[in-house]
Amino acid sequence: MTQASRLQGIFSPVLTPFNADYSPDPQRFVRHCRWLLDQDVGLAIFGTNSEANSLTLGEKRKLLDALLEAGLPAARMMPGTGACALPDAIELTQRAVQAGCGGVLMLPPFYYKGVSDEGLYRGFAAVIDAVADERLRIYLYHIPPVSGVPITLTLIERLLKAYPKTIAGIKDSSGDWKNTSAMLERFQPQGFDVFAGSENFLLANMRGGGAGCITATGNVNPSAIVQLYRTWRQGDAEEQQKKLDAQRAAFAQFPMIPAMKAAIALKTGRADWAHVRPPLVDLDAEQQKALGASLDKVGFVMPNAGALA
Amino acid sequence: MTQASRLQGIFSPVLTPFNADYSPDPQRFVRHCRWLLDQDVGLAIFGTNSEANSLTLGEKRKLLDALLEAGLPAARMMPGTGACALPDAIELTQRAVQAGCGGVLMLPPFYYKGVSDEGLYRGFAAVIDAVADERLRIYLYHIPPVSGVPITLTLIERLLKAYPKTIAGIKDSSGDWKNTSAMLERFQPQGFDVFAGSENFLLANMRGGGAGCITATGNVNPSAIVQLYRTWRQGDAEEQQKKLDAQRAAFAQFPMIPAMKAAIALKTGRADWAHVRPPLVDLDAEQQKALGASLDKVGFVMPNAGALA
Repeated sequence: MTQASRLQGIFSPVLTPFNADYSPDPQRFVRHCRWLLDQDVGLAIFGTNSEANSLTLGEKRKLLDALLEAGLPAARMMPGTGACALPDAIELTQRAVQAGCGGVLMLPPFYYKGVSDEGLYRGFAAVIDAVADERLRIYLYHIPPVSGVPITLTLIERLLKAYPKTIAGIKDSSGDWKNTSAMLERFQPQGFDVFAGSENFLLANMRGGGAGCITATGNVNPSAIVQLYRTWRQGDAEEQQKKLDAQRAAFAQFPMIPAMKAAIALKTGRADWAHVRPPLVDLDAEQQKALGASLDKVGFVMPNAGALA
Repeated sequence: MTQASRLQGIFSPVLTPFNADYSPDPQRFVRHCRWLLDQDVGLAIFGTNSEANSLTLGEKRKLLDALLEAGLPAARMMPGTGACALPDAIELTQRAVQAGCGGVLMLPPFYYKGVSDEGLYRGFAAVIDAVADERLRIYLYHIPPVSGVPITLTLIERLLKAYPKTIAGIKDSSGDWKNTSAMLERFQPQGFDVFAGSENFLLANMRGGGAGCITATGNVNPSAIVQLYRTWRQGDAEEQQKKLDAQRAAFAQFPMIPAMKAAIALKTGRADWAHVRPPLVDLDAEQQKALGASLDKVGFVMPNAGALA
């Protein structure tokens, strides 16, 4: 596989728009994805910030189909396909590969805690062996604060050895730079692409030889994040990073997913963008107001937000 | 609802037998369930020890159907129907109620951590409102060491107030007796049935006015556990409890699920009983041998194990 065909840059775990009855809205989903692509943000659909584990397998299949039917490029997609149940992970991964997705982002099975590397290895291997397709590229998804199931360096090493072509990289959402740094040193030189889990680590990750980042706020602040990715070698990179950090912090005062959805509702005038599925809770009126004020303070704008309405 | 029709006594999160290719084996599942019922153990199918979250929704529907087709009494079943995705929880709960199940054991959505009581309330309420069936009886499933999402006393209080008929009780697998005790004092008098999450707390739970226990080892040691439930007011109860604790400890030296499956394989001579799905790992030959020796030491027998083969 040539370097050019690998996924790189900024990806966003695409927010999933819901209707008031909690059903997904494929039309708004397609519009949001197109808006992201227009700003050169890749589509890590079905991530944590997509509320993907609050979606059924059938709902995910339909949303992916909606993107494909709308003509969006599968090569720019990295759907989350990990699941607690092995056959669910196999089915969605198979579908993603058949659709031509550039890669898949794979959570480990996350119900049982304290499981062994051997058990996780068997889980990933079972998916790879069942899909049995040379085109499959897996990005491991390390997000222990949410999944409760870390992907250790030892596990990565073993998977890379057994499946060097298939194991393509990782999203590190540990929030622990030491961990990201260790992966950059040990695995990035083997062509294992390390994506930071948020733009807070984007500059550091690029300096360390990483591939970019996959970040929640890519949903709302795509251009500025892409700008740093493109120009990280320039003199103003630190300044850009500081501004990105401040913008992210304005969202992170609140639960991130409802806050990003509320921001889109605010900027597009479409109140239904604010809906989340339980167990998440949408921001109340007071929180929405406080969010709006914070966003104004850090000079936050959503270019061409009308395209999302 | 009269007291007599409520679920009480000893329930087992029924182990799910797999074939070598990880597919479930409905025949062995039916035989195991019948063997448990014969010893007066109720069927908490699709629990943590059932590897239920490693099963797809379709697999669970088929396994439930297999039990019903075999003529096993739905009134003695308490299937686990909680799920990360609301529509999955609704679908399986609906199916359980239509089948006449005595109750359902419901995990909260367990992917997101640190979620609010408000969000969890909305999740449970959405299931109850969607199922909209007077026959629905929900037993909440509190197992924070695994789910990472506790069910607080405040949440129980709110749910009981809103849905007094539907919220029927809880399985407390916190391992924290203070928590079980608080629920016995505050909610059991309202007819909210508290089940201990293991037989370690069976005697204490009965003395506190609880309804019984739902326990992993009910799968392998049913008669002795049922015996204590029936005779907990007798003079030898403490002694019985000690013996149960020792027998459980023999299993708990190893990961519980693979150890129980290995014990059944050992006692029935059916090696395929040992299979688990990733991320769990079956015991290796050395562990199996050590388990066998430990079980002999505590005088463990499986009555009529031949019925499981």
